[in-house]
Amino acid sequence: MSVIIDFSIFPMDKNEQSLSPYVARALDVIEKSGLAFELGPMGTSIEGEWDEVMGVVDACYRELEKDSDRIYINVKADCRKGRKNGLSGKVLSAQEKQC
Amino acid sequence: MSVIIDFSIFPMDKNEQSLSPYVARALDVIEKSGLAFELGPMGTSIEGEWDEVMGVVDACYRELEKDSDRIYINVKADCRKGRKNGLSGKVLSAQEKQC
Amino acid sequence: MSVIIDFSIFPMDKNEQSLSPYVARALDVIEKSGLAFELGPMGTSIEGEWDEVMGVVDACYRELEKDSDRIYINVKADCRKGRKNGLSGKVLSAQEKQC
Amino acid sequence: MSVIIDFSIFPMDKNEQSLSPYVARALDVIEKSGLAFELGPMGTSIEGEWDEVMGVVDACYRELEKDSDRIYINVKADCRKGRKNGLSGKVLSAQEKQC
Repeated sequence: MSVIIDFSIFPMDKNEQSLSPYVARALDVIEKSGLAFELGPMGTSIEGEWDEVMGVVDACYRELEKDSDRIYINVKADCRKGRKNGLSGKVLSAQEKQC
Repeated sequence: MSVIIDFSIFPMDKNEQSLSPYVARALDVIEKSGLAFELGPMGTSIEGEWDEVMGVVDACYRELEKDSDRIYINVKADCRKGRKNGLSGKVLSAQEKQC
Repeated sequence: MSVIIDFSIFPMDKNEQSLSPYVARALDVIEKSGLAFELGPMGTSIEGEWDEVMGVVDACYRELEKDSDRIYINVKADCRKGRKNGLSGKVLSAQEKQC
Repeated sequence: MSVIIDFSIFPMDKNEQSLSPYVARALDVIEKSGLAFELGPMGTSIEGEWDEVMGVVDACYRELEKDSDRIYINVKADCRKGRKNGLSGKVLSAQEKQC
């Protein structure tokens, strides 16, 4: 089953101007996974088998847990048998059908 | 770290009047986990350690994957060190502070 | 169309132990709307017509915007024609189908 | 306040191979709004003032409501005072901080 998740994670206990250093650490973890991904303004889309993408979510949590006492996470998953190249395919498929 | 998730899962490939039979199967899995949970209209809140709650998400996915070709999942997690009885505590804490 | 939303809102710029005072202010707004609602650990479910529930989301945003420079919001909506008493009905419907 | 939402909407009552024709109709509505947006695999990011982005959500709902009896919607919003060019800025800011 091809699983695409939209994933966002950030600490809630930092009184800092920007959360991007934490997002960057999660992004490093995602990149090292070798899975196809696409960074967006509100989250990162990651594609793989269920175990693979959930393994990345787990690894990102463990990275931020090191120095965060409160963490917020959002995962939205679309799991579909037989899908290929879902990251680019879903975008193209919608654009083709536009007026 | 106390993790509370709001979790919803449903198949997208069923042309049926109601998705509740599938929700019921996920609910059976959640109950068998022994974790504290609360069923709501739009999702189920589950409380436990990170590995425990993510294990339940995994088990629910595997249950529905048996006979679904497309599955949609939403997970929203609030992870907090040192929290106790978060399921009831979060609700009470907000109600106490109301005007 | 009966619309049920799961709704959560909180400020991200407060370095405070608890966000519940802000959740309580949103809850006051929700109560004043007169719509059916159910407060849960991770969000509040609200039922009404589309304009009604989105009006409540708008009013909660305006309440927190007064003294917050950064706000995070999550809305998950299930909109269905002909549904009655969805808040309790969705929960009962899943429970009836459990093993 | 600069508001960036991640927004997804789809009908749940269609027994069709692909939901992309419906996503395409929502995308047409988003484009016509004139707001900055970015289409991703799991949702579309839209940036504007609160009233503007919520107006687009409303218009997309009304478009799909015409011929759908059940609609699912997800909105995740990050609202921040003083932010400029958030759609590209958020991505760049995370990338700059990577190892």
